Amino acid sequence: MRVLVLGGDGFCGWPTSLYLSDQGHDITIADNLSRRKIDIDLEVQSLTPIRPIQDRLAAWRQVSGRHIGFVNVDLATEYDRLTDLLLDIRPDAIVHFAEQRAAPYSMRTDTTKRYTVDNNVRGTHNLLTALVTTGIDASLVHLGTMGVYGYGWSGSAPIPEGYLTVKVPTPEGELEREILHPANPGSVYHLTKTLDQLLFSFYAANDRLRITDLHQGIVWGTQTDQTVRDERLINRFDYDGDYGTVLNRFLMQAAIGHPLTMHGTGGQTRAFIHIRDTVRCIEIALNNPPQAGSKVLVRNQTTETHRLLDLAKMIGDMTGSEIAYLPNPRREADENELIVRNDQFLALGLEPTTLSQGLLEEITEVAAKYRSRVDPRKIIARSVWRAGMETAADLMTELPDK
Amino acid sequence: MRVLVLGGDGFCGWPTSLYLSDQGHDITIADNLSRRKIDIDLEVQSLTPIRPIQDRLAAWRQVSGRHIGFVNVDLATEYDRLTDLLLDIRPDAIVHFAEQRAAPYSMRTDTTKRYTVDNNVRGTHNLLTALVTTGIDASLVHLGTMGVYGYGWSGSAPIPEGYLTVKVPTPEGELEREILHPANPGSVYHLTKTLDQLLFSFYAANDRLRITDLHQGIVWGTQTDQTVRDERLINRFDYDGDYGTVLNRFLMQAAIGHPLTMHGTGGQTRAFIHIRDTVRCIEIALNNPPQAGSKVLVRNQTTETHRLLDLAKMIGDMTGSEIAYLPNPRREADENELIVRNDQFLALGLEPTTLSQGLLEEITEVAAKYRSRVDPRKIIARSVWRAGMETAADLMTELPDK
Repeated sequence: MRVLVLGGDGFCGWPTSLYLSDQGHDITIADNLSRRKIDIDLEVQSLTPIRPIQDRLAAWRQVSGRHIGFVNVDLATEYDRLTDLLLDIRPDAIVHFAEQRAAPYSMRTDTTKRYTVDNNVRGTHNLLTALVTTGIDASLVHLGTMGVYGYGWSGSAPIPEGYLTVKVPTPEGELEREILHPANPGSVYHLTKTLDQLLFSFYAANDRLRITDLHQGIVWGTQTDQTVRDERLINRFDYDGDYGTVLNRFLMQAAIGHPLTMHGTGGQTRAFIHIRDTVRCIEIALNNPPQAGSKVLVRNQTTETHRLLDLAKMIGDMTGSEIAYLPNPRREADENELIVRNDQFLALGLEPTTLSQGLLEEITEVAAKYRSRVDPRKIIARSVWRAGMETAADLMTELPDK
Repeated sequence: MRVLVLGGDGFCGWPTSLYLSDQGHDITIADNLSRRKIDIDLEVQSLTPIRPIQDRLAAWRQVSGRHIGFVNVDLATEYDRLTDLLLDIRPDAIVHFAEQRAAPYSMRTDTTKRYTVDNNVRGTHNLLTALVTTGIDASLVHLGTMGVYGYGWSGSAPIPEGYLTVKVPTPEGELEREILHPANPGSVYHLTKTLDQLLFSFYAANDRLRITDLHQGIVWGTQTDQTVRDERLINRFDYDGDYGTVLNRFLMQAAIGHPLTMHGTGGQTRAFIHIRDTVRCIEIALNNPPQAGSKVLVRNQTTETHRLLDLAKMIGDMTGSEIAYLPNPRREADENELIVRNDQFLALGLEPTTLSQGLLEEITEVAAKYRSRVDPRKIIARSVWRAGMETAADLMTELPDK
């Protein structure tokens, strides 16, 4: 399968590109390297020493004998180059990771709010119009987020895979209607994924585009079977307050002797998936696209749910780290239940990597190995959801000796 | 009240600005004149001879003694000028008409699709972030569209005002939940109004912005009590296949002896409102904003519903015009029922202008008076919803003598 991976240099995009290449697919990455540039503005770096994209691709050629193409293009602002790329490659499928993907970053300033909306909406919509205009019949797989459903709206009801059947009152009595699950985004970032849903829904209906939207949980882990083959292939690991995801941040904190930062009560329950399962899910989704004329196929891409406090305690028990309770810069419920349907991927053969299998490897092979690259002043989350919200001071300003 | 009218040079914005000024409010118009520029690209002109904005404003000063300010600014691309404007004017309220508002234009080409999404989403989101960043506590009134609900989804149930109470299955039995009415947009233009709804919903909740979204029916009529005071104040009247609204197009066609163009079966039922009622509704909405912390206040701004064929027959009976059945360039149901709740505006004192009151005036005072300005080659609607859809040839290429 000829696959175009948009955002193929990022945290999910890179290991996905390698995995799909390893499975024999013909991969081209399109990426404007924006994620690396944001690191420069935030004055942070990946915990892991990621290489320039051309070094990554050269290393992959060496270890696998397989070529991955690369084009530096901005979907949001270079429409003509995007259509040229589609006509040049004529992909069978497109995987779309090319969106700003951090909630805290999306709430940081009006500039980052606007960047997140402008970049994500325009990039996604340009892609849709480009597919319509070029007539290229590629199936599209998009990374959504569990955050489109919100946390707590469903109470103790399991979150369905995209669609909800409700009863609507009418003069003739109640009618059953299937609706897109109501949108309950918790940040501007999550908001953009709810906008994407409406864009997809329209273009699937009007133009018969074949679209899969994967509502992914919080990704943890770093390496896949492909990225471990050479250190030059290593995946990025974000630990900072804006881009770091909660479990990976705990692992980094344990590795440097920093308290585990619990922003809020820890009663928040979230859905998780290991990066190894992300890449498998993407291939499953590529192999099982919807038919033309179908509604958008929504799959929940997640394997476990955990309360954040339980996660912190688990890491604390393994490593001896203490928990520091800090002000929560987000507007979110202190506690929520979360039950998620993920029947589709399980039925299609996904065998999840569980926390109990993967955690120790992450601590020793990644967090401890690269601990010297951490800047402790970048750990505390300080992008607040509303002006004036309280934030914590640094708990550590210099990296302690090992 | 200090009111900033975004898009105040347009078909709804201009008469609204005059009406609010006449009611004693202090009005500033912000507009990038994009609607006039699109006419240039489409090689059409308003049936009515609209004057440059500065001539309009000077005429209003002469006839009313009242000043209306004007700033040429693009909300989507001139964010810093937008925030400066807000800080300069410090409005009590903002009316936001500044979006590309024609469904056929939004489906015309990939360029117009992209312009519609980019302009509408970015402009609206910039406005929201600018309000948050400046801290200006202005209530916001936005022009939505009845098209966000779609046609036919509700069957014979009346369309509620924004929100729908549904029953959701849970393990503990059915729960009643109030949801935003599911989005069923019929064009890229309507799609952008469904995106706006999600933007508004997030910023009302996260930032306590006070937002009213007015889901308006198809506007007909041209003049208000203010625009008739001097010919230099005349409102625009679009008759072309992209921007002309159905009822005004019938009136223009009757005036020049062109058959009434029925694209499709005519079984489509739509909601209507006279431009005089639009301006009154806007003031009612401004006087009754939601409280900070409330959800978005949605009001249906429409007064009558009619089947398009019934409208054509009514005009045909009054004028002797025949009906020409032409291919429908839109993807839409051939027929639909439509019952709309509009209790809020009626309860707040709106006294609708009915078709039976206003039609004859429109034909004699507007359509017949300016008939010589019509280019008959611009009448047939040819922006198709999907490539390859059939369109009709011109029924008339030159304007007949009167």
